[in-house]
Amino acid sequence: MLDSSLLATVAMVVREGSFERAARALHLTPSAVSQRIRLIEERVGTVLVVRGQPCTATEAGARLCRHADTVALLEDGLRRDLPALAADDASGTYATLRIAVNADSLGTWFVAAIADFAKDHNPLIDLQVDDQDKTSDWLRRGHVLAAVTSLATPVQGCRSRKLGLLRYCATASPAFVRRWFSRGVSAEALALAPSLVFDRNDRLQEQWVKRLLRRDLALPVHRLPSTQAFVDASLAGIGWGLNPLALVQAHLQSGRLVELVPERRLDVPLYWQQARIPLPELDALWRSVSKVAQQALHH
Amino acid sequence: MLDSSLLATVAMVVREGSFERAARALHLTPSAVSQRIRLIEERVGTVLVVRGQPCTATEAGARLCRHADTVALLEDGLRRDLPALAADDASGTYATLRIAVNADSLGTWFVAAIADFAKDHNPLIDLQVDDQDKTSDWLRRGHVLAAVTSLATPVQGCRSRKLGLLRYCATASPAFVRRWFSRGVSAEALALAPSLVFDRNDRLQEQWVKRLLRRDLALPVHRLPSTQAFVDASLAGIGWGLNPLALVQAHLQSGRLVELVPERRLDVPLYWQQARIPLPELDALWRSVSKVAQQALHH
Repeated sequence: MLDSSLLATVAMVVREGSFERAARALHLTPSAVSQRIRLIEERVGTVLVVRGQPCTATEAGARLCRHADTVALLEDGLRRDLPALAADDASGTYATLRIAVNADSLGTWFVAAIADFAKDHNPLIDLQVDDQDKTSDWLRRGHVLAAVTSLATPVQGCRSRKLGLLRYCATASPAFVRRWFSRGVSAEALALAPSLVFDRNDRLQEQWVKRLLRRDLALPVHRLPSTQAFVDASLAGIGWGLNPLALVQAHLQSGRLVELVPERRLDVPLYWQQARIPLPELDALWRSVSKVAQQALHH
Repeated sequence: MLDSSLLATVAMVVREGSFERAARALHLTPSAVSQRIRLIEERVGTVLVVRGQPCTATEAGARLCRHADTVALLEDGLRRDLPALAADDASGTYATLRIAVNADSLGTWFVAAIADFAKDHNPLIDLQVDDQDKTSDWLRRGHVLAAVTSLATPVQGCRSRKLGLLRYCATASPAFVRRWFSRGVSAEALALAPSLVFDRNDRLQEQWVKRLLRRDLALPVHRLPSTQAFVDASLAGIGWGLNPLALVQAHLQSGRLVELVPERRLDVPLYWQQARIPLPELDALWRSVSKVAQQALHH
Protein backbone atom coordinates (compact mmCIF):
# COMPACT_ATOMS: atom_id res chain seq x y z
CA MET A 1 0.00 0.00 0.00
CA LEU A 2 1.01 3.60 -0.56
CA ASP A 3 2.57 5.27 2.46
CA SER A 4 -0.38 7.00 4.10
CA SER A 5 1.65 9.95 5.38
CA LEU A 6 2.85 10.71 1.83
CA LEU A 7 -0.70 10.40 0.54
CA ALA A 8 -2.05 12.72 3.25
CA THR A 9 0.68 15.25 2.47
CA VAL A 10 -0.25 15.48 -1.21
CA ALA A 11 -3.94 15.84 -0.29
CA MET A 12 -3.18 18.59 2.23
CA VAL A 13 -0.95 20.60 -0.14
CA VAL A 14 -3.69 20.53 -2.78
CA ARG A 15 -6.38 21.35 -0.22
CA GLU A 16 -4.45 24.23 1.36
CA GLY A 17 -2.81 25.46 -1.83
CA SER A 18 0.70 25.90 -0.41
CA PHE A 19 3.51 23.92 1.20
CA GLU A 20 3.64 26.35 4.16
CA ARG A 21 -0.05 26.01 4.96
CA ALA A 22 0.00 22.23 4.52
CA ALA A 23 3.01 22.10 6.85
CA ARG A 24 1.10 24.02 9.51
CA ALA A 25 -1.97 21.78 9.22
CA LEU A 26 0.18 18.63 9.45
CA HIS A 27 2.48 19.97 12.19
CA LEU A 28 5.53 19.58 9.94
CA THR A 29 8.17 21.95 8.57
CA PRO A 30 7.69 23.19 4.99
CA SER A 31 10.90 21.42 3.95
CA ALA A 32 9.55 18.12 5.31
CA VAL A 33 6.41 18.63 3.23
CA SER A 34 8.50 19.42 0.17
CA GLN A 35 10.60 16.29 0.72
CA ARG A 36 7.51 14.09 1.07
CA ILE A 37 6.02 15.45 -2.13
CA ARG A 38 9.24 14.74 -4.02
CA LEU A 39 9.31 11.21 -2.55
CA ILE A 40 5.80 10.30 -3.63
CA GLU A 41 6.28 11.93 -7.05
CA GLU A 42 9.35 9.73 -7.56
CA ARG A 43 7.36 6.72 -6.37
CA VAL A 44 4.41 7.42 -8.70
CA GLY A 45 6.72 8.51 -11.49
CA THR A 46 4.93 11.73 -12.38
CA VAL A 47 4.40 15.29 -11.19
CA LEU A 48 1.45 15.44 -8.76
CA VAL A 49 1.52 19.07 -7.63
CA VAL A 50 1.91 22.13 -9.86
CA ARG A 51 4.01 24.50 -7.71
CA GLY A 52 2.31 27.89 -7.88
CA GLN A 53 0.10 30.29 -5.98
CA PRO A 54 -1.98 28.38 -5.16
CA CYS A 55 -0.41 24.95 -5.67
CA THR A 56 -2.77 22.79 -7.73
CA ALA A 57 -3.06 19.11 -8.53
CA THR A 58 -2.10 17.63 -11.89
CA GLU A 59 -4.60 15.10 -13.32
CA ALA A 60 -2.56 12.36 -11.63
CA GLY A 61 -2.43 14.39 -8.41
CA ALA A 62 -6.21 14.87 -8.43
CA ARG A 63 -6.70 11.12 -8.89
CA LEU A 64 -4.43 10.51 -5.92
CA CYS A 65 -6.29 13.08 -3.80
CA ARG A 66 -9.59 11.35 -4.51
CA HIS A 67 -7.98 8.10 -3.42
CA ALA A 68 -6.74 9.78 -0.22
CA ASP A 69 -10.24 11.14 0.47
CA THR A 70 -11.75 7.71 -0.06
CA VAL A 71 -9.27 6.01 2.29
CA ALA A 72 -9.95 8.69 4.93
CA LEU A 73 -13.69 8.06 4.60
CA LEU A 74 -13.21 4.31 4.93
CA GLU A 75 -11.11 4.90 8.05
CA ASP A 76 -13.94 6.97 9.51
CA GLY A 77 -16.08 3.84 9.30
CA LEU A 78 -13.30 1.74 10.80
CA ARG A 79 -13.03 4.16 13.77
CA ARG A 80 -16.72 3.81 14.50
CA ASP A 81 -16.38 0.00 14.53
CA LEU A 82 -13.12 -0.01 16.52
CA PRO A 83 -13.52 2.65 19.22
CA ALA A 84 -10.01 2.03 20.61
CA LEU A 85 -8.64 3.30 17.30
CA ALA A 86 -10.71 6.47 17.55
CA ALA A 87 -9.21 7.32 20.95
CA ASP A 88 -5.80 7.11 19.30
CA ASP A 89 -6.63 10.07 17.06
CA ALA A 90 -7.95 13.06 18.96
CA SER A 91 -6.48 15.54 16.51
CA GLY A 92 -9.86 16.33 15.05
CA THR A 93 -8.98 15.52 11.46
CA TYR A 94 -12.14 14.83 9.53
CA ALA A 95 -12.59 13.07 6.23
CA THR A 96 -13.82 15.18 3.32
CA LEU A 97 -16.54 14.48 0.74
CA ARG A 98 -15.81 16.38 -2.45
CA ILE A 99 -19.03 17.03 -4.38
CA ALA A 100 -19.84 19.01 -7.55
CA VAL A 101 -23.13 20.90 -7.58
CA ASN A 102 -24.79 23.45 -9.86
CA ALA A 103 -25.07 26.98 -8.48
CA ASP A 104 -28.88 27.09 -8.59
CA SER A 105 -29.15 23.87 -6.57
CA LEU A 106 -26.75 25.34 -4.01
CA GLY A 107 -28.86 28.52 -4.04
CA THR A 108 -32.14 26.68 -3.44
CA TRP A 109 -32.20 23.20 -1.88
CA PHE A 110 -28.71 21.73 -1.51
CA VAL A 111 -27.72 23.45 1.75
CA ALA A 112 -30.69 21.76 3.47
CA ALA A 113 -29.36 18.39 2.24
CA ILE A 114 -25.90 19.10 3.69
CA ALA A 115 -27.49 20.22 6.95
CA ASP A 116 -29.51 16.99 7.16
CA PHE A 117 -26.34 14.97 6.54
CA ALA A 118 -24.12 16.99 8.91
CA LYS A 119 -26.50 16.43 11.85
CA ASP A 120 -25.30 12.83 12.24
CA HIS A 121 -22.11 12.60 10.18
CA ASN A 122 -18.62 14.03 10.60
CA PRO A 123 -17.18 14.33 7.08
CA LEU A 124 -16.61 17.83 5.82
CA ILE A 125 -18.18 18.84 2.53
CA ASP A 126 -16.02 20.42 -0.19
CA LEU A 127 -18.22 21.82 -2.96
CA GLN A 128 -17.19 22.54 -6.52
CA VAL A 129 -19.78 24.76 -8.16
CA ASP A 130 -20.27 24.60 -11.92
CA ASP A 131 -23.00 24.60 -14.53
CA GLN A 132 -25.37 21.59 -14.35
CA ASP A 133 -24.04 20.54 -17.78
CA LYS A 134 -20.45 20.64 -16.50
CA THR A 135 -20.60 19.06 -13.02
CA SER A 136 -20.36 15.58 -14.57
CA ASP A 137 -16.92 16.53 -15.95
CA TRP A 138 -15.65 16.91 -12.38
CA LEU A 139 -16.87 13.37 -11.70
CA ARG A 140 -15.39 12.03 -14.94
CA ARG A 141 -11.98 13.51 -14.11
CA GLY A 142 -12.16 11.90 -10.67
CA HIS A 143 -12.04 15.21 -8.76
CA VAL A 144 -15.30 14.56 -6.89
CA LEU A 145 -17.12 11.53 -5.50
CA ALA A 146 -20.61 12.64 -6.54
CA ALA A 147 -22.31 15.34 -8.55
CA VAL A 148 -25.67 17.02 -9.04
CA THR A 149 -25.90 17.08 -12.83
CA SER A 150 -28.27 17.41 -15.78
CA LEU A 151 -26.65 14.30 -17.28
CA ALA A 152 -28.80 11.17 -16.92
CA THR A 153 -26.36 8.70 -18.55
CA PRO A 154 -24.07 7.26 -15.88
CA VAL A 155 -20.49 8.51 -15.99
CA GLN A 156 -18.11 5.53 -16.17
CA GLY A 157 -17.78 3.94 -12.74
CA CYS A 158 -20.77 5.86 -11.40
CA ARG A 159 -24.41 5.27 -10.60
CA SER A 160 -27.04 7.76 -11.77
CA ARG A 161 -30.32 8.45 -9.93
CA LYS A 162 -33.02 10.93 -10.85
CA LEU A 163 -33.52 13.75 -8.33
CA GLY A 164 -36.37 15.73 -9.90
CA LEU A 165 -36.93 18.91 -11.87
CA LEU A 166 -35.58 22.36 -11.02
CA ARG A 167 -38.30 24.70 -12.28
CA TYR A 168 -37.35 28.06 -13.77
CA CYS A 169 -39.48 30.99 -14.84
CA ALA A 170 -38.53 33.96 -17.00
CA THR A 171 -38.99 37.00 -14.78
CA ALA A 172 -38.40 40.73 -14.77
CA SER A 173 -39.59 43.76 -12.81
CA PRO A 174 -42.94 45.28 -13.91
CA ALA A 175 -41.11 48.50 -14.95
CA PHE A 176 -38.69 46.49 -17.10
CA VAL A 177 -41.55 44.70 -18.84
CA ARG A 178 -43.32 48.02 -19.51
CA ARG A 179 -40.14 49.52 -20.95
CA TRP A 180 -39.06 46.63 -23.19
CA PHE A 181 -42.04 44.34 -23.78
CA SER A 182 -45.01 46.74 -24.01
CA ARG A 183 -45.71 45.31 -27.48
CA GLY A 184 -45.23 41.72 -26.40
CA VAL A 185 -42.30 39.32 -26.05
CA SER A 186 -41.28 39.34 -29.74
CA ALA A 187 -37.97 38.55 -31.43
CA GLU A 188 -37.47 42.28 -32.03
CA ALA A 189 -38.02 43.14 -28.37
CA LEU A 190 -35.80 40.27 -27.13
CA ALA A 191 -32.97 41.38 -29.43
CA LEU A 192 -32.91 44.74 -27.63
CA ALA A 193 -33.95 44.03 -24.02
CA PRO A 194 -30.93 43.26 -21.78
CA SER A 195 -31.09 39.72 -20.46
CA LEU A 196 -29.23 38.22 -17.51
CA VAL A 197 -26.98 35.21 -17.85
CA PHE A 198 -25.00 33.49 -15.15
CA ASP A 199 -21.86 32.84 -17.21
CA ARG A 200 -20.85 31.59 -20.63
CA ASN A 201 -22.12 28.09 -19.88
CA ASP A 202 -25.60 29.35 -19.03
CA ARG A 203 -27.88 28.60 -21.98
CA LEU A 204 -31.21 28.70 -20.10
CA GLN A 205 -32.32 32.10 -21.42
CA GLU A 206 -31.55 31.01 -25.00
CA GLN A 207 -33.36 27.71 -24.53
CA TRP A 208 -36.41 29.51 -23.21
CA VAL A 209 -36.39 31.93 -26.20
CA LYS A 210 -35.90 29.06 -28.65
CA ARG A 211 -38.93 27.23 -27.28
CA LEU A 212 -40.97 30.43 -27.42
CA LEU A 213 -40.00 31.61 -30.92
CA ARG A 214 -38.94 28.27 -32.41
CA ARG A 215 -35.66 29.76 -33.55
CA ASP A 216 -32.24 30.77 -32.23
CA LEU A 217 -31.71 34.38 -31.25
CA ALA A 218 -28.62 36.23 -30.03
CA LEU A 219 -29.52 38.11 -26.84
CA PRO A 220 -27.82 41.15 -25.30
CA VAL A 221 -26.58 39.93 -21.93
CA HIS A 222 -25.41 41.17 -18.55
CA ARG A 223 -23.25 38.47 -16.94
CA LEU A 224 -23.74 37.99 -13.17
CA PRO A 225 -22.34 34.71 -11.88
CA SER A 226 -24.36 34.51 -8.64
CA THR A 227 -27.77 32.92 -8.07
CA GLN A 228 -28.85 35.53 -5.52
CA ALA A 229 -27.43 38.47 -7.54
CA PHE A 230 -29.53 37.19 -10.45
CA VAL A 231 -32.69 37.57 -8.39
CA ASP A 232 -31.52 40.94 -7.03
CA ALA A 233 -30.77 42.17 -10.58
CA SER A 234 -34.22 41.04 -11.76
CA LEU A 235 -35.84 42.93 -8.89
CA ALA A 236 -33.73 46.03 -9.64
CA GLY A 237 -34.88 46.05 -13.27
CA ILE A 238 -31.40 45.46 -14.75
CA GLY A 239 -32.57 42.66 -17.05
CA TRP A 240 -34.82 39.66 -17.51
CA GLY A 241 -33.64 36.13 -16.79
CA LEU A 242 -34.59 32.62 -15.77
CA ASN A 243 -34.76 32.34 -12.00
CA PRO A 244 -35.53 29.21 -9.97
CA LEU A 245 -39.23 29.40 -9.13
CA ALA A 246 -38.39 28.65 -5.48
CA LEU A 247 -36.39 31.89 -5.21
CA VAL A 248 -38.94 34.19 -6.89
CA GLN A 249 -42.33 32.74 -5.89
CA ALA A 250 -42.82 35.30 -3.10
CA HIS A 251 -41.80 38.16 -5.44
CA LEU A 252 -44.26 36.95 -8.11
CA GLN A 253 -47.03 36.88 -5.52
CA SER A 254 -46.19 40.36 -4.22
CA GLY A 255 -45.94 41.70 -7.79
CA ARG A 256 -42.31 42.85 -7.45
CA LEU A 257 -41.52 40.44 -10.30
CA VAL A 258 -43.70 39.28 -13.19
CA GLU A 259 -43.36 36.40 -15.63
CA LEU A 260 -42.53 37.46 -19.19
CA VAL A 261 -45.01 34.88 -20.48
CA PRO A 262 -47.32 33.57 -17.76
CA GLU A 263 -46.86 29.90 -16.87
CA ARG A 264 -44.22 29.33 -19.58
CA ARG A 265 -41.63 27.63 -17.40
CA LEU A 266 -38.49 25.64 -18.11
CA ASP A 267 -37.86 22.43 -16.14
CA VAL A 268 -34.29 21.21 -15.82
CA PRO A 269 -34.05 17.51 -14.82
CA LEU A 270 -31.36 16.88 -12.25
CA TYR A 271 -29.56 13.64 -11.41
CA TRP A 272 -27.32 12.49 -8.60
CA GLN A 273 -24.33 10.62 -9.92
CA GLN A 274 -22.14 8.86 -7.39
CA ALA A 275 -18.90 6.88 -7.69
CA ARG A 276 -19.45 3.11 -7.29
CA ILE A 277 -17.27 2.85 -4.20
CA PRO A 278 -18.69 1.22 -1.06
CA LEU A 279 -18.63 4.28 1.21
CA PRO A 280 -21.28 4.38 3.94
CA GLU A 281 -20.80 8.14 4.38
CA LEU A 282 -21.49 8.77 0.70
CA ASP A 283 -24.61 6.61 0.88
CA ALA A 284 -25.71 8.63 3.93
CA LEU A 285 -25.23 11.85 1.95
CA TRP A 286 -27.31 10.36 -0.88
CA ARG A 287 -30.14 9.63 1.58
CA SER A 288 -30.14 13.25 2.76
CA VAL A 289 -29.92 14.58 -0.81
CA SER A 290 -32.75 12.30 -1.93
CA LYS A 291 -34.97 13.24 1.01
CA VAL A 292 -34.58 16.99 0.49
CA ALA A 293 -34.85 16.76 -3.33
CA GLN A 294 -38.08 14.81 -2.94
CA GLN A 295 -39.65 17.82 -1.23
CA ALA A 296 -37.85 20.72 -2.90
CA LEU A 297 -37.83 19.71 -6.58
CA HIS A 298 -40.75 19.15 -8.95
CA HIS A 299 -41.66 15.62 -10.03
CA MET B 1 -6.18 51.00 -37.52
CA LEU B 2 -7.10 47.37 -37.01
CA ASP B 3 -10.00 46.17 -39.16
CA SER B 4 -12.98 46.61 -36.87
CA SER B 5 -14.88 43.61 -38.24
CA LEU B 6 -11.92 41.34 -37.46
CA LEU B 7 -11.66 42.85 -33.99
CA ALA B 8 -15.39 42.39 -33.35
CA THR B 9 -15.17 38.77 -34.51
CA VAL B 10 -12.43 37.89 -32.01
CA ALA B 11 -14.39 39.59 -29.22
CA MET B 12 -17.58 37.72 -30.14
CA VAL B 13 -15.89 34.29 -30.35
CA VAL B 14 -14.40 34.82 -26.88
CA ARG B 15 -17.67 36.16 -25.50
CA GLU B 16 -19.81 33.37 -26.95
CA GLY B 17 -17.25 30.60 -26.53
CA SER B 18 -17.70 29.02 -29.98
CA PHE B 19 -17.36 29.86 -33.67
CA GLU B 20 -20.94 28.70 -34.35
CA ARG B 21 -22.48 30.94 -31.70
CA ALA B 22 -20.33 33.92 -32.71
CA ALA B 23 -21.40 33.36 -36.33
CA ARG B 24 -25.05 33.48 -35.30
CA ALA B 25 -24.61 36.66 -33.27
CA LEU B 26 -22.74 38.34 -36.16
CA HIS B 27 -25.04 37.01 -38.90
CA LEU B 28 -22.13 35.22 -40.58
CA THR B 29 -21.37 31.61 -41.46
CA PRO B 30 -19.06 29.71 -39.09
CA SER B 31 -16.49 29.35 -41.87
CA ALA B 32 -16.45 33.14 -42.37
CA VAL B 33 -15.81 33.54 -38.64
CA SER B 34 -13.02 30.96 -38.80
CA GLN B 35 -11.46 32.75 -41.77
CA ARG B 36 -11.58 36.13 -40.00
CA ILE B 37 -9.92 34.73 -36.90
CA ARG B 38 -7.12 33.22 -38.99
CA LEU B 39 -6.69 36.56 -40.79
CA ILE B 40 -6.31 38.64 -37.63
CA GLU B 41 -4.08 36.01 -36.01
CA GLU B 42 -1.77 36.26 -39.05
CA ARG B 43 -1.91 40.03 -38.82
CA VAL B 44 -1.09 40.11 -35.09
CA GLY B 45 1.39 37.28 -35.48
CA THR B 46 0.15 35.16 -32.57
CA VAL B 47 -2.66 32.82 -31.56
CA LEU B 48 -5.59 34.80 -30.11
CA VAL B 49 -8.20 32.11 -29.55
CA VAL B 50 -7.65 28.70 -27.96
CA ARG B 51 -9.98 26.43 -29.93
CA GLY B 52 -11.89 24.35 -27.40
CA GLN B 53 -15.20 23.94 -25.67
CA PRO B 54 -15.58 26.76 -24.87
CA CYS B 55 -13.12 28.73 -27.00
CA THR B 56 -11.05 30.99 -24.76
CA ALA B 57 -8.72 33.93 -25.30
CA THR B 58 -4.95 33.67 -25.05
CA GLU B 59 -3.26 36.49 -23.11
CA ALA B 60 -2.85 38.36 -26.41
CA GLY B 61 -6.48 37.60 -27.32
CA ALA B 62 -7.71 38.95 -23.98
CA ARG B 63 -5.72 42.15 -24.51
CA LEU B 64 -7.32 42.51 -27.95
CA CYS B 65 -10.80 41.89 -26.51
CA ARG B 66 -10.31 44.66 -23.97
CA HIS B 67 -9.25 46.93 -26.81
CA ALA B 68 -12.40 45.95 -28.75
CA ASP B 69 -14.57 46.66 -25.70
CA THR B 70 -12.94 50.05 -25.24
CA VAL B 71 -13.44 51.02 -28.90
CA ALA B 72 -17.10 49.92 -28.68
CA LEU B 73 -17.56 52.09 -25.57
CA LEU B 74 -15.95 55.08 -27.28
CA GLU B 75 -18.28 54.56 -30.27
CA ASP B 76 -21.26 54.61 -27.91
CA GLY B 77 -20.21 58.15 -26.98
CA LEU B 78 -19.72 59.03 -30.66
CA ARG B 79 -23.25 57.82 -31.50
CA ARG B 80 -24.73 60.05 -28.83
CA ASP B 81 -22.88 63.06 -30.30
CA LEU B 82 -23.63 62.15 -33.93
CA PRO B 83 -27.24 60.95 -34.00
CA ALA B 84 -27.16 60.23 -37.76
CA LEU B 85 -24.58 57.54 -37.03
CA ALA B 86 -26.86 55.96 -34.44
CA ALA B 87 -29.67 55.56 -36.99
CA ASP B 88 -27.24 53.64 -39.14
CA ASP B 89 -26.99 50.91 -36.52
CA ALA B 90 -30.36 49.66 -35.31
CA SER B 91 -29.07 46.15 -34.65
CA GLY B 92 -29.16 46.67 -30.91
CA THR B 93 -25.53 45.81 -30.29
CA TYR B 94 -24.44 47.28 -26.99
CA ALA B 95 -20.98 47.93 -25.70
CA THR B 96 -19.85 45.85 -22.71
CA LEU B 97 -18.10 46.90 -19.49
CA ARG B 98 -16.08 44.02 -18.10
CA ILE B 99 -15.66 44.37 -14.34
CA ALA B 100 -14.13 42.14 -11.65
CA VAL B 101 -15.88 42.07 -8.28
CA ASN B 102 -15.59 40.03 -5.10
CA ALA B 103 -18.47 37.65 -4.38
CA ASP B 104 -19.47 39.28 -1.09
CA SER B 105 -19.75 42.72 -2.75
CA LEU B 106 -21.93 41.16 -5.45
CA GLY B 107 -23.97 39.48 -2.70
CA THR B 108 -24.50 42.71 -0.75
CA TRP B 109 -24.23 46.13 -2.45
CA PHE B 110 -22.89 45.84 -6.01
CA VAL B 111 -26.17 44.96 -7.76
CA ALA B 112 -27.64 48.27 -6.53
CA ALA B 113 -24.69 50.07 -8.14
CA ILE B 114 -25.29 48.32 -11.48
CA ALA B 115 -29.00 49.15 -11.26
CA ASP B 116 -28.22 52.82 -10.62
CA PHE B 117 -25.88 52.85 -13.65
CA ALA B 118 -28.21 50.87 -15.96
CA LYS B 119 -31.08 53.33 -15.41
CA ASP B 120 -29.42 55.88 -17.71
CA HIS B 121 -26.70 53.96 -19.56
CA ASN B 122 -26.75 51.29 -22.24
CA PRO B 123 -23.54 49.29 -21.80
CA LEU B 124 -23.95 45.72 -20.65
CA ILE B 125 -22.09 44.59 -17.56
CA ASP B 126 -19.93 41.44 -17.69
CA LEU B 127 -18.85 40.44 -14.18
CA GLN B 128 -15.90 38.28 -13.24
CA VAL B 129 -16.27 37.13 -9.66
CA ASP B 130 -13.16 36.33 -7.63
CA ASP B 131 -11.71 36.81 -4.17
CA GLN B 132 -11.11 40.46 -3.18
CA ASP B 133 -7.38 39.66 -3.10
CA LYS B 134 -7.51 38.30 -6.67
CA THR B 135 -9.74 40.74 -8.58
CA SER B 136 -6.76 43.07 -9.16
CA ASP B 137 -5.10 40.24 -11.14
CA TRP B 138 -7.94 40.44 -13.69
CA LEU B 139 -7.19 44.14 -14.05
CA ARG B 140 -3.43 43.58 -14.27
CA ARG B 141 -3.90 41.01 -17.04
CA GLY B 142 -6.09 43.48 -18.92
CA HIS B 143 -9.21 41.28 -18.83
CA VAL B 144 -11.37 43.90 -17.13
CA LEU B 145 -11.62 47.71 -17.15
CA ALA B 146 -12.22 48.08 -13.42
CA ALA B 147 -12.25 46.00 -10.25
CA VAL B 148 -13.54 46.02 -6.68
CA THR B 149 -10.44 44.91 -4.80
CA SER B 150 -8.77 44.82 -1.39
CA LEU B 151 -5.61 46.20 -3.04
CA ALA B 152 -5.03 49.91 -2.35
CA THR B 153 -1.85 50.31 -4.45
CA PRO B 154 -2.80 51.29 -8.00
CA VAL B 155 -2.32 48.55 -10.59
CA GLN B 156 -0.13 49.86 -13.43
CA GLY B 157 -2.17 52.10 -15.71
CA CYS B 158 -5.03 52.29 -13.20
CA ARG B 159 -6.41 54.72 -10.66
CA SER B 160 -7.32 53.50 -7.15
CA ARG B 161 -10.07 55.04 -5.00
CA LYS B 162 -11.21 53.95 -1.55
CA LEU B 163 -14.77 52.59 -1.38
CA GLY B 164 -15.14 51.80 2.31
CA LEU B 165 -15.11 48.81 4.64
CA LEU B 166 -17.06 45.58 4.18
CA ARG B 167 -17.82 44.52 7.74
CA TYR B 168 -17.87 40.82 8.64
CA CYS B 169 -18.93 39.06 11.80
CA ALA B 170 -18.21 35.50 12.89
CA THR B 171 -21.62 33.86 13.21
CA ALA B 172 -23.20 30.49 13.85
CA SER B 173 -26.56 29.12 14.92
CA PRO B 174 -27.27 29.08 18.69
CA ALA B 175 -27.39 25.26 18.61
CA PHE B 176 -23.99 25.12 16.90
CA VAL B 177 -22.48 27.40 19.54
CA ARG B 178 -23.96 25.27 22.35
CA ARG B 179 -22.54 22.10 20.78
CA TRP B 180 -19.02 23.31 19.97
CA PHE B 181 -18.30 26.40 22.03
CA SER B 182 -20.02 25.73 25.37
CA ARG B 183 -16.62 26.17 27.06
CA GLY B 184 -15.71 29.26 25.06
CA VAL B 185 -14.09 30.00 21.71
CA SER B 186 -10.74 28.38 22.50
CA ALA B 187 -8.04 26.99 20.19
CA GLU B 188 -9.13 23.47 21.21
CA ALA B 189 -12.77 24.14 20.30
CA LEU B 190 -11.87 25.87 17.02
CA ALA B 191 -9.68 22.93 15.99
CA LEU B 192 -12.74 20.65 16.18
CA ALA B 193 -15.73 22.84 15.21
CA PRO B 194 -16.43 22.76 11.45
CA SER B 195 -15.93 26.19 9.91
CA LEU B 196 -17.22 27.48 6.59
CA VAL B 197 -14.91 28.83 3.92
CA PHE B 198 -15.85 30.16 0.51
CA ASP B 199 -12.95 28.60 -1.42
CA ARG B 200 -9.22 28.13 -1.14
CA ASN B 201 -8.58 31.85 -1.47
CA ASP B 202 -10.82 32.68 1.48
CA ARG B 203 -8.62 33.45 4.48
CA LEU B 204 -11.15 35.49 6.48
CA GLN B 205 -11.92 32.80 9.03
CA GLU B 206 -8.19 32.24 9.64
CA GLN B 207 -7.54 35.97 9.94
CA TRP B 208 -10.32 36.29 12.47
CA VAL B 209 -8.94 33.37 14.51
CA LYS B 210 -5.40 34.75 14.32
CA ARG B 211 -6.53 38.09 15.70
CA LEU B 212 -8.46 36.35 18.46
CA LEU B 213 -5.80 33.84 19.55
CA ARG B 214 -2.70 35.69 18.30
CA ARG B 215 -1.54 32.56 16.49
CA ASP B 216 -2.18 30.54 13.34
CA LEU B 217 -4.54 27.60 13.59
CA ALA B 218 -5.57 24.98 11.02
CA LEU B 219 -9.38 24.82 10.93
CA PRO B 220 -11.63 21.99 9.75
CA VAL B 221 -13.57 23.46 6.84
CA HIS B 222 -16.66 22.93 4.73
CA ARG B 223 -16.18 24.67 1.35
CA LEU B 224 -19.26 26.45 -0.03
CA PRO B 225 -18.44 28.91 -2.80
CA SER B 226 -21.63 31.02 -2.60
CA THR B 227 -22.31 34.09 -0.46
CA GLN B 228 -25.96 33.21 0.13
CA ALA B 229 -25.24 29.49 0.73
CA PHE B 230 -22.76 30.63 3.38
CA VAL B 231 -25.55 32.42 5.26
CA ASP B 232 -27.94 29.49 4.71
CA ALA B 233 -25.31 27.05 6.02
CA SER B 234 -24.72 29.22 9.09
CA LEU B 235 -28.47 29.27 9.78
CA ALA B 236 -28.70 25.50 9.28
CA GLY B 237 -25.95 24.90 11.86
CA ILE B 238 -23.48 23.33 9.41
CA GLY B 239 -20.58 25.48 10.54
CA TRP B 240 -19.41 28.86 11.75
CA GLY B 241 -18.06 31.47 9.34
CA LEU B 242 -17.56 35.14 8.60
CA ASN B 243 -20.64 36.62 6.98
CA PRO B 244 -21.09 40.19 5.78
CA LEU B 245 -22.91 42.02 8.59
CA ALA B 246 -25.42 43.37 6.03
CA LEU B 247 -26.60 39.82 5.23
CA VAL B 248 -26.95 38.58 8.81
CA GLN B 249 -28.04 41.65 10.79
CA ALA B 250 -31.71 40.63 10.75
CA HIS B 251 -30.79 37.07 11.79
CA LEU B 252 -28.65 38.39 14.67
CA GLN B 253 -31.55 40.53 15.86
CA SER B 254 -34.04 37.65 15.65
CA GLY B 255 -31.58 35.32 17.43
CA ARG B 256 -31.41 32.79 14.58
CA LEU B 257 -27.68 33.55 14.42
CA VAL B 258 -25.30 34.63 17.17
CA GLU B 259 -21.82 36.12 17.09
CA LEU B 260 -19.08 33.76 18.29
CA VAL B 261 -17.47 36.65 20.15
CA PRO B 262 -19.79 39.65 20.50
CA GLU B 263 -18.70 42.76 18.59
CA ARG B 264 -15.46 41.18 17.40
CA ARG B 265 -15.78 42.05 13.72
CA LEU B 266 -13.39 42.04 10.77
CA ASP B 267 -13.40 45.01 8.39
CA VAL B 268 -12.12 44.47 4.86
CA PRO B 269 -11.19 47.73 3.08
CA LEU B 270 -12.33 47.79 -0.52
CA TYR B 271 -11.03 49.91 -3.40
CA TRP B 272 -12.24 50.70 -6.89
CA GLN B 273 -9.45 50.45 -9.40
CA GLN B 274 -10.17 51.66 -12.89
CA ALA B 275 -8.10 51.72 -16.10
CA ARG B 276 -6.83 55.21 -16.97
CA ILE B 277 -8.74 55.38 -20.27
CA PRO B 278 -10.99 58.36 -20.95
CA LEU B 279 -14.32 56.48 -21.07
CA PRO B 280 -17.39 58.48 -20.00
CA GLU B 281 -19.37 55.26 -19.46
CA LEU B 282 -16.76 53.93 -17.05
CA ASP B 283 -16.77 57.23 -15.17
CA ALA B 284 -20.56 57.01 -14.96
CA LEU B 285 -20.26 53.49 -13.50
CA TRP B 286 -17.76 54.83 -10.96
CA ARG B 287 -20.25 57.52 -9.89
CA SER B 288 -22.95 54.85 -9.31
CA VAL B 289 -20.49 52.57 -7.50
CA SER B 290 -19.27 55.42 -5.32
CA LYS B 291 -22.80 56.57 -4.45
CA VAL B 292 -23.98 53.11 -3.40
CA ALA B 293 -20.73 52.25 -1.57
CA GLN B 294 -21.04 55.50 0.40
CA GLN B 295 -24.32 54.25 1.88
CA ALA B 296 -23.76 50.49 1.99
CA LEU B 297 -20.19 50.19 3.29
CA HIS B 298 -18.73 51.28 6.62
CA HIS B 299 -16.44 54.31 6.81
